[in-house]
Amino acid sequence: MYKAAFIIIGNEILSGRTQDKNVNYLAKWLEGFGHDLNEVRIIPDEKARILQTLEDLKKTADIIFTSGGIGPTHDDITAETIAEFCKVPLTIRDDARQILLDYYGPENLTEARLRMARIPGDAKLIENPVTRAPGFYLNDIYVLAGIPKVQQAMLASIAHLFDHNGSKIHTKSIRTNSPESELAAFMQKLDEDYEDLSVGSYPYNVNERYAVRIVLRTRDEALMEEAIVKVITTLEERSVAYAFEDV
Amino acid sequence: MYKAAFIIIGNEILSGRTQDKNVNYLAKWLEGFGHDLNEVRIIPDEKARILQTLEDLKKTADIIFTSGGIGPTHDDITAETIAEFCKVPLTIRDDARQILLDYYGPENLTEARLRMARIPGDAKLIENPVTRAPGFYLNDIYVLAGIPKVQQAMLASIAHLFDHNGSKIHTKSIRTNSPESELAAFMQKLDEDYEDLSVGSYPYNVNERYAVRIVLRTRDEALMEEAIVKVITTLEERSVAYAFEDV
Repeated sequence: MYKAAFIIIGNEILSGRTQDKNVNYLAKWLEGFGHDLNEVRIIPDEKARILQTLEDLKKTADIIFTSGGIGPTHDDITAETIAEFCKVPLTIRDDARQILLDYYGPENLTEARLRMARIPGDAKLIENPVTRAPGFYLNDIYVLAGIPKVQQAMLASIAHLFDHNGSKIHTKSIRTNSPESELAAFMQKLDEDYEDLSVGSYPYNVNERYAVRIVLRTRDEALMEEAIVKVITTLEERSVAYAFEDV
Repeated sequence: MYKAAFIIIGNEILSGRTQDKNVNYLAKWLEGFGHDLNEVRIIPDEKARILQTLEDLKKTADIIFTSGGIGPTHDDITAETIAEFCKVPLTIRDDARQILLDYYGPENLTEARLRMARIPGDAKLIENPVTRAPGFYLNDIYVLAGIPKVQQAMLASIAHLFDHNGSKIHTKSIRTNSPESELAAFMQKLDEDYEDLSVGSYPYNVNERYAVRIVLRTRDEALMEEAIVKVITTLEERSVAYAFEDV
């Protein structure tokens, strides 16, 4: 069992503009694996404060999660701060750049967006099926996006690291060319029909419009095969184009 | 202007059983008076942790609010912990006892309820019009109930202590239909150009995609007007749709 701490880098929470939803989700998520959320700190988007908070919590927590500050703008300073804290260089890493390149295309991968490929040292990437720009982890610090839907998808991507007793979680990601709303009822039914299957629905941008990516997760390999057959059958019946993606 | 810190003594928040609502309320309440919520910590109901947290935050905050742990049960340890921290005795005080007596009547003022009349030293009472048992404050520590409705009523009882007619913070929130990354460079420059202006960039989900909300904050009303003209001009030049929102 881990003792976890959670740092919310959150001017928007401290000003009251945004109601936090991430504490509650992370608390339940950790508890589901038998881990313990031991402390939460909400601090401003200031490098010195983040560094001090990391130093404090490293003394009492086995693992630390951070929320926020990994977007494309000038006030997104989490990656550089984590690099400084861990005493590793911060570089635009090829693997992260490739993810953004695949998503935005070369003409839309602006300098601002390329900031999201800055990864400290040899941190491992955390997949982000929603908006693609990855999170990362190193030295037991897990760096997540602040938008709840993105954060929750990132947590799903690293769930296997925290589930020490259970069997592996199988994941399949299927990119479609259909809007989310047209597949919503089908996905909801699929989710309800199989208790041990989680069906995620993540819109993504393609050719100036939004289509949906379906992400299936289960510990049961046979159930995964069955669910995939259902998805493919349905997409083909409706003439929806699709492609399997690496996860 | 005060720098405020907020300590939530909250096993129920850390376990995920309860969704916190007090941070958001207090943040807005403080901002309304021009004060600044500088840090929030959510910690377990353990005396040693509360003492350590008070000690830490006393170094950086002018005033501290605490939430929770002043009810009638054995695990309500906030009052005794504050007394220990402030090095004053904890006694059942006549003024607090009288409030409970008036409310419950002599026959229903049980030993458990009488715990809620234990007040550190000569702390001033904070009126609680909802469930009567008072909060209190001493040495710039404001001790509030954890139940949101009660906490909010207690804050109303002490509002006059915080309304110094300081210069109000002006806030403008502008919702756009542009992705964050396309306005990142503009927002960064705006933030750099005006030292006394804070430019926040907050993606939000709209019609299955993410667009950015720009939030401007400053105490300087003239500067706000100037910044807004810049934002509007830029958005219109780029054919970005936008709308002002209430904050």
